[in-house]
Amino acid sequence: MCGIVGVSGISDAARLTYLGLYALQHRGQESAGIVAVDQDGTARSHRGMGLVSENFDDEMLASLPGDVAVGHTRYSTTGSTVLANAQPCNVNTRCGPLAIAHNGNLINAGAIKHELVSRGAIFTGSSDTEVLVHLIARSEAATVEDQIREALEQVDGAYSLVITVGRTMYAVVDSRGFRPLVIGRLGSSGIVVASETCALDLIGASFHCELRPGDFIRIDDGEVTHLPRLAPRPMTRCVFELVYFARPDSIVFGKSVDGVRRELGRQLAREQPAPGGEVVFAVPDSSNAMALGFAEASGIKLEYGLIRNHYVGRTFINPTQALRVAKVKIKFNPVREVIEGKSVVVVDDSLVRGNTSKELVQMIRGAGAREVHLRLGSPPITGPCHYGIDTPTRAELIGATHSVEEIRQFLGVDSLGYLSLDGMLAAAGKDTGYCHACFSGRYPTRTPEQLVQPRRDTPLIPTTA
Amino acid sequence: MCGIVGVSGISDAARLTYLGLYALQHRGQESAGIVAVDQDGTARSHRGMGLVSENFDDEMLASLPGDVAVGHTRYSTTGSTVLANAQPCNVNTRCGPLAIAHNGNLINAGAIKHELVSRGAIFTGSSDTEVLVHLIARSEAATVEDQIREALEQVDGAYSLVITVGRTMYAVVDSRGFRPLVIGRLGSSGIVVASETCALDLIGASFHCELRPGDFIRIDDGEVTHLPRLAPRPMTRCVFELVYFARPDSIVFGKSVDGVRRELGRQLAREQPAPGGEVVFAVPDSSNAMALGFAEASGIKLEYGLIRNHYVGRTFINPTQALRVAKVKIKFNPVREVIEGKSVVVVDDSLVRGNTSKELVQMIRGAGAREVHLRLGSPPITGPCHYGIDTPTRAELIGATHSVEEIRQFLGVDSLGYLSLDGMLAAAGKDTGYCHACFSGRYPTRTPEQLVQPRRDTPLIPTTA
Amino acid sequence: MCGIVGVSGISDAARLTYLGLYALQHRGQESAGIVAVDQDGTARSHRGMGLVSENFDDEMLASLPGDVAVGHTRYSTTGSTVLANAQPCNVNTRCGPLAIAHNGNLINAGAIKHELVSRGAIFTGSSDTEVLVHLIARSEAATVEDQIREALEQVDGAYSLVITVGRTMYAVVDSRGFRPLVIGRLGSSGIVVASETCALDLIGASFHCELRPGDFIRIDDGEVTHLPRLAPRPMTRCVFELVYFARPDSIVFGKSVDGVRRELGRQLAREQPAPGGEVVFAVPDSSNAMALGFAEASGIKLEYGLIRNHYVGRTFINPTQALRVAKVKIKFNPVREVIEGKSVVVVDDSLVRGNTSKELVQMIRGAGAREVHLRLGSPPITGPCHYGIDTPTRAELIGATHSVEEIRQFLGVDSLGYLSLDGMLAAAGKDTGYCHACFSGRYPTRTPEQLVQPRRDTPLIPTTA
Amino acid sequence: MCGIVGVSGISDAARLTYLGLYALQHRGQESAGIVAVDQDGTARSHRGMGLVSENFDDEMLASLPGDVAVGHTRYSTTGSTVLANAQPCNVNTRCGPLAIAHNGNLINAGAIKHELVSRGAIFTGSSDTEVLVHLIARSEAATVEDQIREALEQVDGAYSLVITVGRTMYAVVDSRGFRPLVIGRLGSSGIVVASETCALDLIGASFHCELRPGDFIRIDDGEVTHLPRLAPRPMTRCVFELVYFARPDSIVFGKSVDGVRRELGRQLAREQPAPGGEVVFAVPDSSNAMALGFAEASGIKLEYGLIRNHYVGRTFINPTQALRVAKVKIKFNPVREVIEGKSVVVVDDSLVRGNTSKELVQMIRGAGAREVHLRLGSPPITGPCHYGIDTPTRAELIGATHSVEEIRQFLGVDSLGYLSLDGMLAAAGKDTGYCHACFSGRYPTRTPEQLVQPRRDTPLIPTTA
Repeated sequence: MCGIVGVSGISDAARLTYLGLYALQHRGQESAGIVAVDQDGTARSHRGMGLVSENFDDEMLASLPGDVAVGHTRYSTTGSTVLANAQPCNVNTRCGPLAIAHNGNLINAGAIKHELVSRGAIFTGSSDTEVLVHLIARSEAATVEDQIREALEQVDGAYSLVITVGRTMYAVVDSRGFRPLVIGRLGSSGIVVASETCALDLIGASFHCELRPGDFIRIDDGEVTHLPRLAPRPMTRCVFELVYFARPDSIVFGKSVDGVRRELGRQLAREQPAPGGEVVFAVPDSSNAMALGFAEASGIKLEYGLIRNHYVGRTFINPTQALRVAKVKIKFNPVREVIEGKSVVVVDDSLVRGNTSKELVQMIRGAGAREVHLRLGSPPITGPCHYGIDTPTRAELIGATHSVEEIRQFLGVDSLGYLSLDGMLAAAGKDTGYCHACFSGRYPTRTPEQLVQPRRDTPLIPTTA
Repeated sequence: MCGIVGVSGISDAARLTYLGLYALQHRGQESAGIVAVDQDGTARSHRGMGLVSENFDDEMLASLPGDVAVGHTRYSTTGSTVLANAQPCNVNTRCGPLAIAHNGNLINAGAIKHELVSRGAIFTGSSDTEVLVHLIARSEAATVEDQIREALEQVDGAYSLVITVGRTMYAVVDSRGFRPLVIGRLGSSGIVVASETCALDLIGASFHCELRPGDFIRIDDGEVTHLPRLAPRPMTRCVFELVYFARPDSIVFGKSVDGVRRELGRQLAREQPAPGGEVVFAVPDSSNAMALGFAEASGIKLEYGLIRNHYVGRTFINPTQALRVAKVKIKFNPVREVIEGKSVVVVDDSLVRGNTSKELVQMIRGAGAREVHLRLGSPPITGPCHYGIDTPTRAELIGATHSVEEIRQFLGVDSLGYLSLDGMLAAAGKDTGYCHACFSGRYPTRTPEQLVQPRRDTPLIPTTA
Repeated sequence: MCGIVGVSGISDAARLTYLGLYALQHRGQESAGIVAVDQDGTARSHRGMGLVSENFDDEMLASLPGDVAVGHTRYSTTGSTVLANAQPCNVNTRCGPLAIAHNGNLINAGAIKHELVSRGAIFTGSSDTEVLVHLIARSEAATVEDQIREALEQVDGAYSLVITVGRTMYAVVDSRGFRPLVIGRLGSSGIVVASETCALDLIGASFHCELRPGDFIRIDDGEVTHLPRLAPRPMTRCVFELVYFARPDSIVFGKSVDGVRRELGRQLAREQPAPGGEVVFAVPDSSNAMALGFAEASGIKLEYGLIRNHYVGRTFINPTQALRVAKVKIKFNPVREVIEGKSVVVVDDSLVRGNTSKELVQMIRGAGAREVHLRLGSPPITGPCHYGIDTPTRAELIGATHSVEEIRQFLGVDSLGYLSLDGMLAAAGKDTGYCHACFSGRYPTRTPEQLVQPRRDTPLIPTTA
Repeated sequence: MCGIVGVSGISDAARLTYLGLYALQHRGQESAGIVAVDQDGTARSHRGMGLVSENFDDEMLASLPGDVAVGHTRYSTTGSTVLANAQPCNVNTRCGPLAIAHNGNLINAGAIKHELVSRGAIFTGSSDTEVLVHLIARSEAATVEDQIREALEQVDGAYSLVITVGRTMYAVVDSRGFRPLVIGRLGSSGIVVASETCALDLIGASFHCELRPGDFIRIDDGEVTHLPRLAPRPMTRCVFELVYFARPDSIVFGKSVDGVRRELGRQLAREQPAPGGEVVFAVPDSSNAMALGFAEASGIKLEYGLIRNHYVGRTFINPTQALRVAKVKIKFNPVREVIEGKSVVVVDDSLVRGNTSKELVQMIRGAGAREVHLRLGSPPITGPCHYGIDTPTRAELIGATHSVEEIRQFLGVDSLGYLSLDGMLAAAGKDTGYCHACFSGRYPTRTPEQLVQPRRDTPLIPTTA
């Protein structure tokens, strides 16, 4: 997953972009970058591995002048964890200097890359976004907008994009609308584009609108122009944004994330009650709202059973397994008084590999719980995401390889209850079409397996004749 | 405030100390240090400005071998923010290599320092702890233990200490018992001393006992020996540890911090109800348990109205005002759906200067609150702490300079309710004697104003005769 | 100027490359980089701003496994001082992973870049080397070698290159032979390519041969294959390599650099004697050999009149004027005993802007010199270098804008003597054809002024139709 | 060895001190530090491991305001390589804030430290300088000057000191005068104290005088006051300062270092001619002047046979053997043209362990030398220095354990010639008394073996009675 920000029409755009990225830090901690464009059209950039606050300080931001800027926080979806894959991409093309920040994942990037390479294109990293840049640069369309459109017509998958070409900014969301993108206004002429509304809030911008699937807009001198939309497709918003990824204070897909999560918790209580439960508590902080909803609907008393160490990052997001294990051990501590001798209901949003939850359950038992009942605010994850979330392979997904009873035994809980697919979608809102492929296996696009994949890194040209 | 850790009788003591400091990071973020003593009695140390995790990595910990170690995290109480004041102190004395980690504050350090300097003592920093080291080193008592005792008899104020002399460790708490200190056991021979039980939990040690006021113990080869206690004084445990400072998952002064905070919240609801309130929420995370208690007792629905950015540190603890303001703006974001159009009750633990709360209230009103009712889980703070908490001067304390109605107007809330002193002490538990000087002005020791203070840094000796 | 290294056919190639770059540090201090290719053909790279030793340590080198590696040290010739211009370039192309290290400068890069961009090519930096990579990748020739050849046929200017495509290495020198490149052997199968022989010495490789102008070779599994040579052109070796740039312990263009410089000094003494001179000394260390030659031929006693601070870098090489001034002041100190009351002859290799020399002369006078006679081992520099040396613009070249007498007055010396063009070429060796364009204005290629230059950074495509 | 600087009576004293330390970097590369005192008498300091330029930048220097400053560069003489031993010491005493920078070594520091510790003194590091600080602080004399004097009367050994107490500066040299210390003037009121005159040159100060053995001066508001001198002792200036340590552009002990070294070279040629030698060259740069003198007196032609890599530090000075070996391999490269087929005379200043020279000789033979004749500008080193130079133990000194013929065989040279003790002293100047203990074994003080040494780190006080 990634967080993207664009700022146009207001001075010190890089500094505002920094604030926006700061608010979107939960969407990616692997790398951070900003490209700023000044009045003369000169683009300057900085990218680095790690957090936004680790890579940018006052001096660095001062070296990125201009009233147009694009920013990106990344965690690895495709491509490995190296600086060459950090975004925004910032290159010179026939359209002028071009910067691009991409949230999502293109499923046919491999095939297109193979084709581009055979026609002499050069790739500096392994990210799918670079494919898009080449398609734009090579398009022979008459205007920049048509070049972008022509490029987008060739790719398939998930993309919410902020692009600058010279001093003009574009924002676009793929026709299925997998990933969110919102527009805000700041002062008389400032326009802000961001993955979530929480970025607008920190920047101090007012919410203007959310891009619908297929929306393609141009931003120039404080003016937002809607360009013709991309060819329509069935809407498949990513339900996992609402279940886990987005910040609860954001409005995503027209809904309060907090409100959806509370409804997920209530629905979970209705579907998977925990009759003998004496207290219910969340795995903080991602499941706080769900636990609140569960308590409301079940009548079981809400407590804070786990205390989170504020000096640790978010588990899900770190790229290596080794680090995750180490961090889990130091992330939470149980509150013995709340737990001891009780039958406790633990609410979590989802279950990926199961290892973290197993350790948590052991910790809770160690604090004296008489019974542990785990309730999950989403169905078993049975397949990978091809649209931008870095889920592991099917073999590592415990929901794909084990029955609920087997998982219950593995975790060592007295009972285990998953929310149903229908229950989740009902809570998320029937008015919206969702992608729930990682739960249901119903992928809205072709899957990588269905695409003929060229062998990676095989040269097309022999060294000697 | 500071966090202190001692580990004895178990290999890789520095690594365990690191874990303990990690769990106590909330007690001080200004500097961190570890001294380790190996089998030959050689002491090695590292200290640095900033967080524990910023100063220690695997390589650094490997360079601190030994089965005895002392650690410290600090924020400035006395002395300025410089490396020279980072602890543990680590010096060579006639008793051998001595390391000391101190939580608390000595009120007569200035006068003793003046006296010591006039007798030729050298001071390398400005911390009060250095005074104690000199007193120990200069004592002519026959044993190390008597030297320490003789030194402690001369100082007044708050001190929980872990001291190593050679390979022997001592732990001691002043006779009034201002600051907590607990003992745990790890494996067959490991002894762990720490400010709070949450450090034992992360290290994996089992809770053994909490030091009572005046307790003085020696730890040697896995053996804990109780030495004669210090001369008794009335017990004045710091009530602010329970209200704000300690982690909720800790047991402090024999009580669950979480449990006390919930009772503070319930008592607050009884004393200061908010009749028309539709939702109640905490200023996370320090007030979570209080808000839960308030909701329980008041029947008003608990919500999560403020979302905390996980990538920021704790406001109270940073040494400069400039940084605090900046961080407040990026620390919280309101959840509009929870707040909009409602009469909201906001629960916070205490009010220091009032600036942060004022900004918070504005943010909450900006998210559409119809009415804002602020409820505080402690009385107005009317005076500084002389025992280790870095409260500002009286002039900066809004509770010392303004009436409750004036504060209400300053903050811009519809109603403001403080918990009473009696209510706070009742919730904290009548069985324990507390220091509540910062609320009541009743200081258990002489105050600095009552002590004749020597002029600081005035040389006693002229350059020329 | 840049230093380049290639290692093939021997394990730990990155570590050997590091040593080679270390020995070539004098050729560029702005950035350093290494690309290593392992047995599977996977290429890994690291580049950074600053010295080789600042960018690479044991851990970093261990992360670059493989028996094929390319390295580069750079100072800015074309392109600005940013990481995006650091080499080696490392990209994926239709030929497979391609890395390239370039010493020299292409004079028609701008025009070709304009053409490439109009055909959809993307540029990530502003270096001329990137043009070459695109030309190779886009060539439709049947083999990699023919692709490289086709690309080289389109560019004009100076290039000594080490290229890897997959695990195959190529080394090539332009047909005029501006820049040096040598081949060495290490062990039974190791081949080393480097800008100067001093790199072979440090690596421990034995000298095998120097590439002649137009040589194009392939290195594979310890085998060196001579491919058909590039189309011949008149040989124009850069004479400034011998005068100033190369290390005196290197063999360059078949000659001992030290030997040439001594002959330059002798010739200088013959052409520009200093009759009343009592002592002669060098501006260390670049003019040491010249001063020795001058002393030999003139019979004036050699001394060490200037002591160089070992903790400073080389003046000529730092990119900004501000830094140069600051460093000059701290670089040399005169030896009063040698200078005081004497008529001194100071030998330097060349004069660029004249500011540094002026300061030097003032320092020498301040140390009590009765007379100062400056002798320069090369003619006045009257024009910029277009082939890889970062000389300033003509307006800044004192030799281009002032007469010898004016320069003498500006510097404040009693006499000033330049070596003649013929004298310099005679000392360098009549058997070799040299480029002396910066002295004589006789450029062996078209100059940038003669090429129609496209306007830089002007987009070809409008934003809207 | 160490370099020390004091600046008084001129604003931005820290910046001038920085320049002075920069010029004295050759005297110590292990750590660097500056203490500055402002108009109010507030002392601020920074110390760090490594070079001056690595520890101080503009921002750091700006944080050290004031018109009085003391600086120090260190390599380990006594005490281990840790920050706690970096100087200047900066402490608060009864005289006020005291800073001290020490060049030299106290031979009875151990015994005094033992005594001080038994009287309750606390030591934070293991350097001998800390002993002096305690003695000053504990002295009960009536004035600061008498306190310093009383302290100095108790210590024996080598010390050149710059001390500040409040805003008053003192400079003092022990009565034997082991280490140099000079005074310069800058502007109308600025006074500069430094180890060598090369520091005055870089600062821009004019040379005023050199301190004689036993000189004790006070510097206050641009005024230099000579205080009564220390009790006289036979003068024993360190001859090794002239042979190796000082920079050739300095005036040390009233002599031009360059001039002395040239005379050492001439004397060496007279005592140890090399009849068949065809060329003579130095091991650069420390032996440059000696080789020049040798060439002059012998008539053998001077050449540059070894090229030094400018990007490496000085061999002698790095604290660990491992690093030295690694650096030697990358420090020099032979010039084949100069050496090949010739009988070469290599001039070096001295021989310590012999390993570096052995490697050098192998390198020179590898470059084709027919014969190698090594000539050393000082006698065999047969014992350690107790006065501040970090020579290894006797067992490691090849001159102490092997005959000249054995050393010749070990090094693999055709002939080996040492300068005689008398020859060295004659070249250094008969007018000065020298310490030549490391060559002759005639130590001017008691040696550590002759002093009863207390066991290190043994506590005096039992833990329990």
